[in-house]
Amino acid sequence: MSRDSLDDLNAKLLAFARERDWEQFHSPKNLSMALAGEAGELIEHFQWLSEEASADLGAEKKGQVALEMADILIYLIRLSERLGIDLVDAAYRKMAMNQARYPSERVRGDARRAEEYD
Amino acid sequence: MSRDSLDDLNAKLLAFARERDWEQFHSPKNLSMALAGEAGELIEHFQWLSEEASADLGAEKKGQVALEMADILIYLIRLSERLGIDLVDAAYRKMAMNQARYPSERVRGDARRAEEYD
Amino acid sequence: MSRDSLDDLNAKLLAFARERDWEQFHSPKNLSMALAGEAGELIEHFQWLSEEASADLGAEKKGQVALEMADILIYLIRLSERLGIDLVDAAYRKMAMNQARYPSERVRGDARRAEEYD
Amino acid sequence: MSRDSLDDLNAKLLAFARERDWEQFHSPKNLSMALAGEAGELIEHFQWLSEEASADLGAEKKGQVALEMADILIYLIRLSERLGIDLVDAAYRKMAMNQARYPSERVRGDARRAEEYD
Repeated sequence: MSRDSLDDLNAKLLAFARERDWEQFHSPKNLSMALAGEAGELIEHFQWLSEEASADLGAEKKGQVALEMADILIYLIRLSERLGIDLVDAAYRKMAMNQARYPSERVRGDARRAEEYD
Repeated sequence: MSRDSLDDLNAKLLAFARERDWEQFHSPKNLSMALAGEAGELIEHFQWLSEEASADLGAEKKGQVALEMADILIYLIRLSERLGIDLVDAAYRKMAMNQARYPSERVRGDARRAEEYD
Repeated sequence: MSRDSLDDLNAKLLAFARERDWEQFHSPKNLSMALAGEAGELIEHFQWLSEEASADLGAEKKGQVALEMADILIYLIRLSERLGIDLVDAAYRKMAMNQARYPSERVRGDARRAEEYD
Repeated sequence: MSRDSLDDLNAKLLAFARERDWEQFHSPKNLSMALAGEAGELIEHFQWLSEEASADLGAEKKGQVALEMADILIYLIRLSERLGIDLVDAAYRKMAMNQARYPSERVRGDARRAEEYD
C-alpha cells in the first residue's frame, strides 16, 4: 500500500521535532528563516559557476547540493505542518495561476517576469 | 492508481516549461536564484510578526503564504529534475544524518546549531 | 584629509579583485547571488533566537555577526561599482520615498507593509 | 565640514524609526529577516538574465536595482546600530582576513571557495 512521500516525510519530521522538544522553536517565523538560510547555502554552490557548469556538477558537489535541497524540503514540510497548509494542493493552485498568467503562445522563449508584460 | 504527488508535479512542471521553451532559462544556477528569491518573499510575510502571531495568520495572509511556499516547492522540483537529484531520497538521507548528529537525549529542548556543540 | 569610508572601501575592494583577476567572476548576477548567500548566513545566526536574545548577543556571536554583515557590505559595494550605482544617493532617494509612503502620524507603532494600507 | 555618509544615514534612519515608534519592531532578528527579504528581491532582478545582460541593465531596471540595494544598505545600517557594530571597521577586518585567506599569487583567476582549497 503506497503512501505519499510528502506525507511520510511530514510524519517523520514531526516525530523528530517532538522527540527533541523542538516544536517550541518551530514557529512559522523561525522556520521561514531556517528555510531562507538554507536557500542561501544552496545559491552559494552556484554563485561563481557559469550556467553551463551549474548543469554539470561533479559527484561530490552534486551530493552537497542534494543535501541543501533536502534541508529546504524539510523546512518547507515543517512549515506547512505548523500552518496547516497543504503543500501539494497549493502547488497545483499556483500552477493553474501560472497557466493563466503565462499563456504559452504569448511567452514562448521569453522569461520576463509577469509584471513586465503590460 | 496512486501516483506520488512529487512525481506528478515534476511531470507537469516539466511539460509547462517545455511548452513555453523555458528550459533554456532553467539552468540550475538560475533556478537556485529563483528559489532564493521566493524564500525572500516568504520571510517578508513574517518579518514584523511576533513568533506567536506567525502561528496564527488570518485567512488572506495564510493563502498568500501558501502560494509563496508553492513557488519554493515548484523551483525545488524543477531544480531536482535538472540536476537528476531524487529529492525524497535526499531528504531521508539528511534525516538520517540529523538523527546521528542530534541525539534526542543530548539536545532535548536546545536549538543550538550543531557546530556549537563541542 | 577625510575620505568617505564607502569610497575608500570601494577602491580597496576593486584593487583586491583586480589583483586576483576576479573581476571576470564579478558579474552583477553573480554578485547578487553572493550577497544573498551572505544574507542567508546572517539570518542563520538569529533563526532560533527570541527577539530579545537577538538584541543581546555574546561577544563571540556578535563578532561572527559583524563579519557576516561585513560580507554583505562588501558585495553591496562591489555590485554598486559594477553597475555604476551610487549607493548613498540611492539610500537617500529611498528614504525620501519612505518618508512620503509612511507618514509618521499615520503609521506610528504599526509595522504593516505599505501595500497593506488602503 | 564633511561627515561620513554612513554616519549620516545612520542618524537619519534612527530618527525615522523613532518618529514612527518602529524601534519596537527593529529587533536584530527582525532586521536580519528584512535584509534577507530585500536580498531576495535583488536577485529576482537578475535570475533570468545572462551574466552579460546583468552588466548592461536598461535605465529603468537599473533604477529599480538601485532601490533594492538601498533597502539592503538601510537594513544593514539599522542592524549595525541595534547591535552596536561598526560596519566599516568590520569590513576592514574582513578584508584583512580575505587578504590572508586568498593570496593573490595562489588564487589568481580561480574563484573556488576557500574551503575547497586544501
